[in-house]
Amino acid sequence: MRASQYLIATVKETPSDAVVISHQLMLRAGMIRRLSSGLYTWLPMGLRVLRKVEAIVREEMNRAGALEVLMPVVQPAELWQESGRWQQYGPELCRLNDRHNNEFCLGPTHEEVITDMVRNELRSYKQLPANFYQIQTKFRDEIRPRFGVMRSREFIMKDAYSFHDSAESLQQTYDAMYQAYSRIFERFGLDFRPVIADNGSIGGSGSHEFHVLADSGEDDIAFSDSSDYAANVEMAEALAPTGERPAASQALTKVATPGQHSIEDVSQGLNISPAQIAKTLIVLGEAEDDQEAPLVALIVRGDHELNELKAEKLAGVASPLQFASEEQVKNATGSAPGSVGPIGLDLAMIIDRAAAHLADFVCGANEEGYHYTGANWDRDCTISGNDKVSIADIRNIVSGDPSPCGTGTVQIKRGIEVGHIFQLGDKYSAALNASILNKEGREQVLTMGCYGIGISRVVAAAIEQNYDDNGIIWPDAIAPFQIAIIGMNMQKSEQVSEQCELLYQQLTDLGYDVILDDRNERPGVKFADMELMGIPHRLVIGDRGLKDGNIEYKGRRDSDNQYIAIADILDFVNNTLSKP
Amino acid sequence: MRASQYLIATVKETPSDAVVISHQLMLRAGMIRRLSSGLYTWLPMGLRVLRKVEAIVREEMNRAGALEVLMPVVQPAELWQESGRWQQYGPELCRLNDRHNNEFCLGPTHEEVITDMVRNELRSYKQLPANFYQIQTKFRDEIRPRFGVMRSREFIMKDAYSFHDSAESLQQTYDAMYQAYSRIFERFGLDFRPVIADNGSIGGSGSHEFHVLADSGEDDIAFSDSSDYAANVEMAEALAPTGERPAASQALTKVATPGQHSIEDVSQGLNISPAQIAKTLIVLGEAEDDQEAPLVALIVRGDHELNELKAEKLAGVASPLQFASEEQVKNATGSAPGSVGPIGLDLAMIIDRAAAHLADFVCGANEEGYHYTGANWDRDCTISGNDKVSIADIRNIVSGDPSPCGTGTVQIKRGIEVGHIFQLGDKYSAALNASILNKEGREQVLTMGCYGIGISRVVAAAIEQNYDDNGIIWPDAIAPFQIAIIGMNMQKSEQVSEQCELLYQQLTDLGYDVILDDRNERPGVKFADMELMGIPHRLVIGDRGLKDGNIEYKGRRDSDNQYIAIADILDFVNNTLSKP
Repeated sequence: MRASQYLIATVKETPSDAVVISHQLMLRAGMIRRLSSGLYTWLPMGLRVLRKVEAIVREEMNRAGALEVLMPVVQPAELWQESGRWQQYGPELCRLNDRHNNEFCLGPTHEEVITDMVRNELRSYKQLPANFYQIQTKFRDEIRPRFGVMRSREFIMKDAYSFHDSAESLQQTYDAMYQAYSRIFERFGLDFRPVIADNGSIGGSGSHEFHVLADSGEDDIAFSDSSDYAANVEMAEALAPTGERPAASQALTKVATPGQHSIEDVSQGLNISPAQIAKTLIVLGEAEDDQEAPLVALIVRGDHELNELKAEKLAGVASPLQFASEEQVKNATGSAPGSVGPIGLDLAMIIDRAAAHLADFVCGANEEGYHYTGANWDRDCTISGNDKVSIADIRNIVSGDPSPCGTGTVQIKRGIEVGHIFQLGDKYSAALNASILNKEGREQVLTMGCYGIGISRVVAAAIEQNYDDNGIIWPDAIAPFQIAIIGMNMQKSEQVSEQCELLYQQLTDLGYDVILDDRNERPGVKFADMELMGIPHRLVIGDRGLKDGNIEYKGRRDSDNQYIAIADILDFVNNTLSKP
Repeated sequence: MRASQYLIATVKETPSDAVVISHQLMLRAGMIRRLSSGLYTWLPMGLRVLRKVEAIVREEMNRAGALEVLMPVVQPAELWQESGRWQQYGPELCRLNDRHNNEFCLGPTHEEVITDMVRNELRSYKQLPANFYQIQTKFRDEIRPRFGVMRSREFIMKDAYSFHDSAESLQQTYDAMYQAYSRIFERFGLDFRPVIADNGSIGGSGSHEFHVLADSGEDDIAFSDSSDYAANVEMAEALAPTGERPAASQALTKVATPGQHSIEDVSQGLNISPAQIAKTLIVLGEAEDDQEAPLVALIVRGDHELNELKAEKLAGVASPLQFASEEQVKNATGSAPGSVGPIGLDLAMIIDRAAAHLADFVCGANEEGYHYTGANWDRDCTISGNDKVSIADIRNIVSGDPSPCGTGTVQIKRGIEVGHIFQLGDKYSAALNASILNKEGREQVLTMGCYGIGISRVVAAAIEQNYDDNGIIWPDAIAPFQIAIIGMNMQKSEQVSEQCELLYQQLTDLGYDVILDDRNERPGVKFADMELMGIPHRLVIGDRGLKDGNIEYKGRRDSDNQYIAIADILDFVNNTLSKP
């Protein structure tokens, strides 16, 4: 492509409404333009990236045996009423009426439509497993669209849905999708992690999110420094400390801690580490029938955070987790929440594994303005063999913890969720009565999986991970152009112009995506534009270099030029670039 | 692709709600499924065709220098208010509100959005001409969606918009698009015609429709049997008859024609050809200020049809054309419409060229139940030199007329409009104030062209042109698969199975799209399915053939098999098929 025939729509100023770097750079590099809140036009330069992302996803989905279909954007309300989501889905579901006043919605996802298609088309277990996908425009009416195409209202998604007659078959396709996703993100050239995620009521390892690691990510990912293990922090198990609990060495002492309500207050007031404090939180338990819900004490170390998702999954704890009111806490403990502790407390207790390993610790004395020091389990508060006490994992994992997989130490990084694979079970197939005749000749409701990739989101996430002060740094596989050729003084020097054209032709013939910057602009403008737009490889041709028989090469991450002999340039490019 | 791993969703019965053949066959062949009125899911087999159509369009648009973008489906009302179309567009425009109650529509077309983009991005004449296209989902809320994807509500369109600083530049891009469209439809392998079309107020040759010829088409196309000329019947000029008007040979005679009101009545009653009758139609003329509109008589031959589009463009005729009421006709002529004629008529008259060449003709006598025979112009009704009379082309061209291009004779065929190129002028650029700085440094409003192809419609049109009793007959270039390999008794015969697998691998490696029907079905089922789905080339491998060293080949349009030696089969395929 010749830059003079292209739309180079770079902008110098950082747009004031763009907060995150990918949004800023996509606007500045002329990749997208805002049409309205959460609605973006993809300009030619941005669309090239989007199409490369699409192509890689399509290739790998096909390779994994999934079949591509294309479902409508506009979906009839009837199907959503059948699944129950017409009522459940909030205002993110954009509803509309046609000219005959029939109700429709703009599809934010296509479980209903594909399940309807499958219940009509598939009749026998012999047609299973089946896995259908599409790459398609979706709409979610976000209350606050932001971050450009990272959280837009209209976006492009690859969504796939698989259908099975057994859990084993679902697991096989799920594993194949896991592998396909791993290949896809590897081919993108992005640093990513498949991350164990929550899959609601189904349990097991039936859900993984694929995260692109980036400091600006919205999610915390815990991963092992020595294995492939990675999980959403909310999901990662915090293992019990190894070894015996240390023996008691201090006497239990009640100390005045006036005005000290938070862990930080107490830690400073008593000059001890938060890790030596047992923090007691009172929540609602499970109510029996019409009875008032009993209270439950959750105890974690002062330097740890309660993991609500883990806690609310435990027997005896109300789900979703609800903290007791200050009044309820006072009635049950005789103290405000800031001075509550396990000693003498007449409530069911769930103690985190790390907190249960403490000795000579500090805790609230259940008396306003007082704490205990030198507290020790069993000596001061019986937990072994106590029916009302259980020990469980109820905290967030932290950096430095042993990895739940048994190998290595946990590190925490931030990630951007760009993919999600999920074992749906029969949620939709049961509601829509999608069944087949099984081997025994009986009607059997199908089991489903679903698998999404945020195509437009991948583009933004790639930038969040790969940029510098000068702009975007595209990985080769999804760069709009792989190579920029810039001629110095091209309009005046015939030999520069000729060499540019020759090289442009040669590299294009070799199958590379090349942009020849033949605009009548100063070299500085061309350099800046090509860097801003993130073209990963740059070849500069000038009279001076040609005199020495050289072409200058600079990789987008390099700090220095390399001088390559003209005769060697094609070999050099072939060796340096991964072919398209 | 192995058929056992694919979704072969053929159906034996013709669906009762499908009227046209393409709709029937797309459903029966498992190409599409109806989700709701005018909404279709593309199944894998159909989507392959759609993607091939898209790919050819994309390649040729790129080759013609157009730049691909992607605009949102959902568009803000503000832009449509700016262009005025928010008010003008009827209920086909699907309007909706977002959660904040802002107004949007689902884009049926993207003139506003692209013009908004261009007014923000293009600043100088140096950036012109520019031509942007997209291949994208559109929505039109048709009052009566029908014919499957031929007239659906959600559909895929390639729409392009070009921007210019002069009419000459627009004409150049228009011509390039004309060439690109011609290449596109040629590559599809369809019998098509670029057809001169109406472009409203702009005039000139600024609009062409591209029609796929098919008996089921909704439009009549007039084309020359000896040149490239083709025009929508409404647009084709009917030339004046050559030579002198024959001399009068009969006396003017008033004859009773009781109850004979139509041309057919009079023709039968008087036993003369309709071609010998002058038909007089009274319409409204152009009113001056507040005055009542005068009446105008339009006269065409009895075997010809008035062309309203031609008539309403003439000076003195109201546009849009309006017929006078029966009362108005009686007041002006003294007779009901069925007995009106030019002799003695005190109205402005416009006589069609062919009607003006009549001699000894029949016409109404302006007296209920009477006609004249032996009427002759000038002798009985002065037209030469008469200010109130003009002679013009106001009829539809008919088969057998001389071609307007001057070469050959006109034939009429039916066509399906699948593409349209159009010189828009400044309709949108002026309304949205899209301007650039011209060479003189002055602000200048842009001139625009637009260019559409109905991507999903092409698929249906291709079928309307190419089918037989057994199903679809795809042209090679857009066939879902080019070659079907069918093994006879494949499940039991090891040598058949091995030869099938070998050939499948060889042809796939050569780059052909091959479907290997490895389903455990009877050969008859496989033959029928592959024919219904329109796979253009079939190779059958059986024990009997293998004994003789042969593979059976049959083209989808062939009536007989050919027996090809196994050693020659790859050469045979290479020679027979156009490569992908």
